[in-house]
Formats: sequence, C-alpha cells, structure tokens
Amino acid sequence: PWTPWGSTPPAAATGRPMMNTSTAPGRTVWVIAEGYIPSASTGDGRAFESHETACILNAGDEDAQVEITLYFSDREPAGPYRVTVPARRTLHQRFNDLNDPEPVPRDTDYASLLAADRPVIVQHTRLDSRQAALALLSTEAYGE
Amino acid sequence: PWTPWGSTPPAAATGRPMMNTSTAPGRTVWVIAEGYIPSASTGDGRAFESHETACILNAGDEDAQVEITLYFSDREPAGPYRVTVPARRTLHQRFNDLNDPEPVPRDTDYASLLAADRPVIVQHTRLDSRQAALALLSTEAYGE
Amino acid sequence: PWTPWGSTPPAAATGRPMMNTSTAPGRTVWVIAEGYIPSASTGDGRAFESHETACILNAGDEDAQVEITLYFSDREPAGPYRVTVPARRTLHQRFNDLNDPEPVPRDTDYASLLAADRPVIVQHTRLDSRQAALALLSTEAYGE
Amino acid sequence: PWTPWGSTPPAAATGRPMMNTSTAPGRTVWVIAEGYIPSASTGDGRAFESHETACILNAGDEDAQVEITLYFSDREPAGPYRVTVPARRTLHQRFNDLNDPEPVPRDTDYASLLAADRPVIVQHTRLDSRQAALALLSTEAYGE
Repeated sequence: PWTPWGSTPPAAATGRPMMNTSTAPGRTVWVIAEGYIPSASTGDGRAFESHETACILNAGDEDAQVEITLYFSDREPAGPYRVTVPARRTLHQRFNDLNDPEPVPRDTDYASLLAADRPVIVQHTRLDSRQAALALLSTEAYGE
Repeated sequence: PWTPWGSTPPAAATGRPMMNTSTAPGRTVWVIAEGYIPSASTGDGRAFESHETACILNAGDEDAQVEITLYFSDREPAGPYRVTVPARRTLHQRFNDLNDPEPVPRDTDYASLLAADRPVIVQHTRLDSRQAALALLSTEAYGE
Repeated sequence: PWTPWGSTPPAAATGRPMMNTSTAPGRTVWVIAEGYIPSASTGDGRAFESHETACILNAGDEDAQVEITLYFSDREPAGPYRVTVPARRTLHQRFNDLNDPEPVPRDTDYASLLAADRPVIVQHTRLDSRQAALALLSTEAYGE
Repeated sequence: PWTPWGSTPPAAATGRPMMNTSTAPGRTVWVIAEGYIPSASTGDGRAFESHETACILNAGDEDAQVEITLYFSDREPAGPYRVTVPARRTLHQRFNDLNDPEPVPRDTDYASLLAADRPVIVQHTRLDSRQAALALLSTEAYGE
C-alpha cells in the first residue's frame, strides 16, 4: 500500500497514517498554457533572476520519468525535454535551465505539456524581476 | 493516434513517446470569471502595457476555432469574437486586441466564455502596470 | 437550448454557434479558502483600495441567487449574505462591500462558501495596496 | 443533513437555505507542489514577514484532523505535522510556524501533501517581502 512516506515511515509518524492507498495521488498529463521568460532581470543572483518554473511532486515510491514538450505560436513544438523526479521527491524545474535538445527562447510566448509515466502533481510559477519590485504568479497546471 | 508532436516527431524524440492516445488533452468550454483591463500603464512598449491575456494551447493535430463571448455587469453580452489556434500551436490572445465586433471597454468589469470546436487548454493572465512596480496574476480557467 | 447569448443572439453571430446545450456551464457550490482584507491602502480612490473580490459569472438565461457564508478561525460563521447575479451578467462582488447581516472584519483571516441556485463560475481576486507598489493575486475557486 | 451553518443557523438565515446535503464540500487529499519560504523580509511585523500559508476550510460539523507531509529535492520527506481544523472554522496555517517534528527550512524548495480525515478545501498563498514592494501569489491546491 502507498503512504505519504513510503515503506519506511519517519520516527515521528507514531499514529496511524490517514492515507494508506494503493496509488500515490496525481495525474500523468499536465498542461501549462502560459509561458514567457523575460530576458531582463534586476537584483543579484539566481534567486532574483526572472524565471518560470514547473514544480513537480512525485509522492510515489518509484521514480517518475517526465517528458516536457514546448509549443510556440509560429513553429513546430520543441522537445521532448526529459527529466526524472525521484520517488518521494519534488523537482522545481526552471524552464530557463532546459537546454537539451535546445534552449527555451526568451521574450517568446510558449506553452508546455508534461507527460509522466507515473502520477505526479504540477504547479506553475513565474518570478518577474524586470523591475526592482519583483512580481510573482503561480497557478495549478491543468491535469487530466 | 495522437502524440505531443503530431505525425512527425522531432529528431530528438528517439525514445518511445509516453503519450500516444486517440485525442489531444483539453476541454471545449472555458470560463474566466475575472476580467478587467486598466486603461493606465507605465513603462515602455507593448510588453509593459497593462493587459489581460487568454493563453490557449491547441495540442491537437487539427486547427481549433474558438469563439469568445464577453459578459458585463449591466448590458447584454458582446461577441462572438473568433480566433483560430492552429494545430500544435499556442495563442496568447490579449483581450486588449479584440476589436471585432467591438473593442473591449477599459476600466470595466467583465467575464469571458471560450467555446472551442476541439479540445484546448486555457490559462488567464493579467499584467497591471498602472504603477511603476508591475503586478501579475495568473490562474487556470474553469473548464468543462 | 442554451447558447452563450441567450435566445437573442447578437447581430455579429452570423455563423452557427459552437455551443448549443441544455444547460449553462458552471457549478452550484464554490469555496474560497483564502480570505483577508487589509485595512490599510495607499493610492487614490476605489480602484486602488485594498480589496477582495468574488468574480461570479451567470452565463445562464435565468437570474441566479447566491448565498455567501463566511467562516472564521475563532467564531461561528457569518451570513448568509445574499446577492443576485442576473441572467447573462457577471458580478464582481467585493467582500469589502458586504454589510448585511454584518460587515466583513478587516485584518482577519476568513474563508467563504458560495451556494447558488443555478450553475455559476467563481474566481477570487485580491488587490493589496498596503504599499505603493500594489500586489495582485487571483485563483479559480474550488467548485463542486 | 449538512448546511453551511451547522445545526444552529444564524438569526439572519430567515429564508430556506440553498444547501442542505448529507456531507460538507471538499476532498481529503490536497497537494501544493510549489513551496519556498524566503529567509529575508522587509517591513514591520508578522503581517509583512515573508511567508507561505495553507488556507484550510472545514465547513463540516465535526473537527478535521490534518496531517501535512513535506517533500524535498534531496532528502526523505519530513512529517507528519498534525493540525486540527475545528468544525465550521478556517485555519490559515503558515508553514513558517510548523516546528514539530522539525522546522521548515528557509530558502529551500519543497512541496506539501495534506491528508485529512474529513472533507476540507485547501488554497495556497505566499507573501514575498524580500523587497519593499511585496509580491503575492495564490492558487487552489490540487485535490483528489
């Protein structure tokens, strides 16, 4: 059975766990229709660089392989970009860091589709630091 | 069968694709209950103009026709505005740019309903630059 | 049959409408778990006053009655607050303006449940102008 | 039967309540894939401290026990953290305040899974005050 902690619950889990099901939560197809990485940033360092992130959680007990395909307004899709989200781990994948098979263009509208071989959960975040006062957005991706 | 890349996978897709289903993901009815375009902007150029956008992804292999209807607080709906989202493309449609049959009024509460003839995914974004420090919001639309 | 424009389509709807179903889209129960109205604001006028809004769309052909109940961390719920969303109209209801049976307390955590007698769609927005650089958030409410 | 106000409706509920069902709305498993608490803040006091919050509503008539598990990118999960959301109450739980069995690390990517023994609704919010102009984000969590 699946629990939030896998087969080796932490010492603190003294009570009976509330979840003990056959599969981890999530879905295998996720879409983020909004995508845009500003080329400009203000502020120091990686934390304040303008970026877009797909936050992926694999709460399951086996590693998940995820293929990311990028869609554009005026050309054929790019990808697949392949990432692994290990069992019971989260991966906050910056689109800025995707370079294989090709870098993600800046200042360009795009959308992304994530296909996983096991159930995962995806949330989308952008930090925009084009101006000194940074702006944030985040939303649940569309899953099915 | 449907794959994220259509019938001609990119050269990089050397492995077996994870998705190979009969239909592209998405839904045909989407609603954005929040709508408001500020008339004021600061900053230079189109990128920093206050705007609202419906980010639409058509991951399918055939073009999608989308009809947008706008609802207001005190008058009958406007529309339909018609846009096409080509196969395997994303369209980030600014409501600011909808002019036929009539422009979208500024500084006015509205809501929008998008009806497509094929499955698409819709995400809603607003950039507010009324003040020098821009503000962003984004959320998945309501689909059914 | 239901269409986005009711029984009298606008002149512009020359083509065959894509939607022609028996019921308008939406759900009758919506929850916004996050609620907080800052008492402080900067900037001039109603547009820049810190506020929280429930954006409600009634795309149907009959008026919708909506009852809003507010939940708190340390007292029994308040309400119901009653609002009407006319047929084919959107209502962007500021929680700041709810006064009957009692005003919504400022600087206080709350949550809200909206129950409608017909299908509607609800989106939640907050504008925070406690500082000169305003901040925005928005998310689809939880519907069932 | 369940109503938004429990067995003792407020005096203001003079009309027939619209909701009178067997169970309160919500789900028992919620996931927030995005998590990040900045260690830095500007501004005075708790209200402006950079924080992440899980806004939980228990609209039901019995207390809900909620177990929170945190996932990281490079170590086994932490938790469970246990909180109670009383009947007909909302709890806006700051992740900053979770200390048992261990504090939530700052400046660190994480994700969270909330498992409840009764239906609840969860919304996620972050206030980022690393810069004087605060930034906000909020999104419905993923529920199943």
